[in-house]
Amino acid sequence: MMAAMSFSAASVPDPSPELLQRAAAVRRSAMALAQRSDGERQAALQAMADALEARREQILEANRQDLDAAAADGLASALVARLKLDGPKLDGAITGVRQVAALADPLGRRQLHTELDQGLVLERITVPLGVVGVIFEARPDAVMQIASLAIRSGNGAILKGGREANRSCTAIIEALREGLAASAVEPAALELLTSREESLALLKLDGLVDLIIPRGSNALVQFIQDNTRIPVLGHADGICHFYVDAAADPALALRVAIDSKTQYPAACNAIETLLVHQAIAPQFLPQAIDAFAAAGVELRGDAAAQALGVSHVATDADWSTEYSDMILAVKVVPDLDAALEHIGRYGSRHTDAICTTDPATADRFLAAVDSAGVYLNCSTRFADGFRYGFGAEVGISTQTLPPRGPVGLEGLVTYRYRLRGDGHIAADYASGTRQFTHRSLPL
Amino acid sequence: MMAAMSFSAASVPDPSPELLQRAAAVRRSAMALAQRSDGERQAALQAMADALEARREQILEANRQDLDAAAADGLASALVARLKLDGPKLDGAITGVRQVAALADPLGRRQLHTELDQGLVLERITVPLGVVGVIFEARPDAVMQIASLAIRSGNGAILKGGREANRSCTAIIEALREGLAASAVEPAALELLTSREESLALLKLDGLVDLIIPRGSNALVQFIQDNTRIPVLGHADGICHFYVDAAADPALALRVAIDSKTQYPAACNAIETLLVHQAIAPQFLPQAIDAFAAAGVELRGDAAAQALGVSHVATDADWSTEYSDMILAVKVVPDLDAALEHIGRYGSRHTDAICTTDPATADRFLAAVDSAGVYLNCSTRFADGFRYGFGAEVGISTQTLPPRGPVGLEGLVTYRYRLRGDGHIAADYASGTRQFTHRSLPL
Repeated sequence: MMAAMSFSAASVPDPSPELLQRAAAVRRSAMALAQRSDGERQAALQAMADALEARREQILEANRQDLDAAAADGLASALVARLKLDGPKLDGAITGVRQVAALADPLGRRQLHTELDQGLVLERITVPLGVVGVIFEARPDAVMQIASLAIRSGNGAILKGGREANRSCTAIIEALREGLAASAVEPAALELLTSREESLALLKLDGLVDLIIPRGSNALVQFIQDNTRIPVLGHADGICHFYVDAAADPALALRVAIDSKTQYPAACNAIETLLVHQAIAPQFLPQAIDAFAAAGVELRGDAAAQALGVSHVATDADWSTEYSDMILAVKVVPDLDAALEHIGRYGSRHTDAICTTDPATADRFLAAVDSAGVYLNCSTRFADGFRYGFGAEVGISTQTLPPRGPVGLEGLVTYRYRLRGDGHIAADYASGTRQFTHRSLPL
Repeated sequence: MMAAMSFSAASVPDPSPELLQRAAAVRRSAMALAQRSDGERQAALQAMADALEARREQILEANRQDLDAAAADGLASALVARLKLDGPKLDGAITGVRQVAALADPLGRRQLHTELDQGLVLERITVPLGVVGVIFEARPDAVMQIASLAIRSGNGAILKGGREANRSCTAIIEALREGLAASAVEPAALELLTSREESLALLKLDGLVDLIIPRGSNALVQFIQDNTRIPVLGHADGICHFYVDAAADPALALRVAIDSKTQYPAACNAIETLLVHQAIAPQFLPQAIDAFAAAGVELRGDAAAQALGVSHVATDADWSTEYSDMILAVKVVPDLDAALEHIGRYGSRHTDAICTTDPATADRFLAAVDSAGVYLNCSTRFADGFRYGFGAEVGISTQTLPPRGPVGLEGLVTYRYRLRGDGHIAADYASGTRQFTHRSLPL
């Protein structure tokens, strides 16, 4: 991963003439790709998958070399686990490419259709973004996932993986481009950057790159946002809350809260804080303490939670900490308003849940919490593109503007207005000679 | 207008505690406003309009004082014209507020409705962005327009107008807040900044402001993009093209080209370059030269256009110049591909038109030109939110990502995912105990 915090704004270099040339080639190929049909793009993905299979041994060997180098460099074991690409993992990734091929075409959808006047018809049609730049961590399987999402949606992609994965990523991109060479899509639509200089210069490729997707730490995302004019799809923190209302079913609340924390605690959609209504706390918390202890979760409580048995102390810092670990902050609140106030103050607008059997309370919570996901009586862990039924996920956005929350293929498309007339001029409407009809037509 | 070019990144100050407090008050009021019903928001706009009428004389007097000061300062006449708010202009703006009240509610629309599993139902619902920050030029009527769009869509707004218009803007905002005081919407949802320090510090209000809309020069937009983490809705240049194909109807082409250039040459959707297919140029250009001369437009041609009678020379710089004036660059191209190449190289992806009677050529142009608007046989001047039928316009975006092109009220809303379950947990799907159904439900 890029050591984001070690860079100052001044250290972002201008792109080299060679990088500008490569990026321009991606852009040209992407413009041609945008004209390819649904079937041609699907066939291109199948050809990519075929080529990955054909080059399976070279890819696995390149990964073994990366792993050897990582061992020699004493890379942390968590990073080694991400870097490792064995046979089953590679096969899974290849299956993933074929699954993306099977997803519905996100292009050419008509979102708006209006007659402005007789013979003057407006349409809004989905089209590719152009070129996406993706900066990701060590995981070499990300190359296959991102490349297939990009090509499926008609976009070129400039990829930059972790330095530790350079051999693996290079072997994969060679296979993918070999596959594209046997398709209607130009291999130059995919480009891999391998040096840190290049990945920094990528931030200055505005006009050639339309969206940057950083898949890494908060520090990386923020560094990128501070150093580029290109729009960034990314998320900051995932500080998710689970509020157990006075009218909650305690057994249901406990089951869902434990899943929300423990099903994958490192995920951004795992909860960090449990808010409990004071009316149910004396009944709920003692059970919860036992159940979370059995699940291996450390609870940290405010004074009221400690009085009910939570043994560790939560300080103010706990309310704004993303543990990404088996730790959960617990706070007893006097009412729904206090819960809303707490979430508004400390939340990251990612995903927040309420557990209640009272419909009015549920509706108030779902309307008032301004997060990408607001949930009733179910686990925050459902905040995921696959689980939402999008088939594949570009990332999760905690920005307010769309695309927000889990982003599927639609995050890689934009739209264009098409207006067809027959000599229509604006002066006729300004003078009152003609009037707009603004009649909706079928989509 | 803010003298954007005179600032360096280092000169953007941190917000003062007082500004942070005011911005936080806007945010709190905006959160309450987001809970107001369609009818309450409509009534709030009517109350705003009523208050503007009640304070009509004070507002006009404040504007006269601004105009006197502008005269004493020797302000340029174009700026004085923008600054001036007389009775008819004010009445028009008040009518505009009532028209925005009448627009369809952009909130609470269900965009997606999916059963993830039995009893686990996902919805995607439109909600307000939160708080928008708008920086605009001298025109005081912008305050009324922006405030009404913001309140209609459930957003708070922090406004900063030109210094020359401070008295007018202050009088208007006082009236608007007085109107809100008589409604279900808190007056603190609208805030006016009057100092340059404050408008710069606005750029650092991430977390409190969700979108910045700069309405001014390209330099202003770019300065803001370079100095904020907050998303910016803005457009850079408007270099629009009009391509007269070999198969064009010359009379129709001429009529539409003249409208595209002259109907309002200062607008970003006016054309700057006329591309003419070489097969039609000997017939078309001589007529066009006479007609544009009669309309008061100076033509600047490449060698081929000069050979056909265009008297001024176009240099390379002309192809990338937004004249915003009665000047038009003219180039003769060998074919459609050359026209597409020229537009791809010099265009600003705003709005580009083709004039042809050949359907295949039209389709190729409409598919290949990657601009927010692609037009056939009609004037580029139609690229406008009102003309598209949106009722009101937040601005025009030349960014690739949505919202793109003319942006109506939908540019001020985002969405939220609501998931309602009955104790559903992710572990059951990970283990295979339960399977997702991902069944589409009616919207």
